[in-house]
Amino acid sequence: LDAVQARERFAGARVARLATVGANAWPHIVPIVFALDEDVLYTAVDGKPKASTALRRLDNIAANPEVAVLVDHYADDWTQLWWARADGIARVVRGEAAQPGIRVLTERYEQYREQPPVGPWIEIRVDRWSGWQAAGPEPPPAP
Amino acid sequence: LDAVQARERFAGARVARLATVGANAWPHIVPIVFALDEDVLYTAVDGKPKASTALRRLDNIAANPEVAVLVDHYADDWTQLWWARADGIARVVRGEAAQPGIRVLTERYEQYREQPPVGPWIEIRVDRWSGWQAAGPEPPPAP
Repeated sequence: LDAVQARERFAGARVARLATVGANAWPHIVPIVFALDEDVLYTAVDGKPKASTALRRLDNIAANPEVAVLVDHYADDWTQLWWARADGIARVVRGEAAQPGIRVLTERYEQYREQPPVGPWIEIRVDRWSGWQAAGPEPPPAP
Repeated sequence: LDAVQARERFAGARVARLATVGANAWPHIVPIVFALDEDVLYTAVDGKPKASTALRRLDNIAANPEVAVLVDHYADDWTQLWWARADGIARVVRGEAAQPGIRVLTERYEQYREQPPVGPWIEIRVDRWSGWQAAGPEPPPAP
C-alpha cells in the first residue's frame, strides 16, 4: 500500500493498536479508538482501561514521543490480509488544546456523544503512512 | 482479566499484533499469526510481508529482545471490549531450534500445512500475561 492507501485504511477502521516505548525500552501496546484530521490522529484516555495502563501509555509518551499505530484485517483466507501503519510523534493534550481532538472523536463515535471521555487526550502527528496487502487470488485468465 | 484468562484469550485468537523496539527506540508493530505451547508463543516470518518489514522485526529483536504481543476484540457495543497482552523475551530461531514452533504453527493453521513458511521463526517466552475487559452491561435487577 502506498501512503495515500494506508491513510485510507485508517480512515475506514474503527479500532487501531498504539505502541509506545518508555524509558526502559520495553514496548507497550493497547487497542485504541481514534479519529483523523488530515495527518493528525487523535485518541482519548477515557477512563475505561485500568488506571495503571492509562498511566503507562502517558508516561511512555512523556519519556519518548515516538509511537506507531496499526490497523489490520485478518481473514482465514490469507489472500485477503492487509495492514496499515502510522509512525508519528505523540503528545498528551488537555483543556483547550484538546478541543480539535474532542471534536473529531465525538463526530466519529456516537459512544463519545453519549458519554464524553474525560481525557487526557493524545495527539499524534503522523510522519509516515505505510502498509501492505496480500497479493490476492490470481486474476481469472483473459477470455 | 487475570493471567490465566489473558492466556486463554490468546489461545482463542487467530491474529495478534507484535510490538518490537530497536536500537533507535522507535516502536514497530505488525500483525502476526501465532501458536502457543504453554508460556511460549511462536510466530513465523513467512515471506509474505515486504522483506524490509520482516528485517525490521528481526533487527529489533536482535537489538532488544523485549517484546509485547496484543490480542483484542472490538465491537461498537463498548461493553463488549476486551484485550489481552503478553510481555516477553523474543529470540529468532532457525533450523533444528525452530522445530517446536513449526509443529504448533502447522497444527494450528491449515494454511501453513498447505504452504509451510520458510522462516526464520520467532520464539517468545512470555513473562507476563495481562488483560482487561469492559464491565459489560449492568446485570438485571434481582427478582
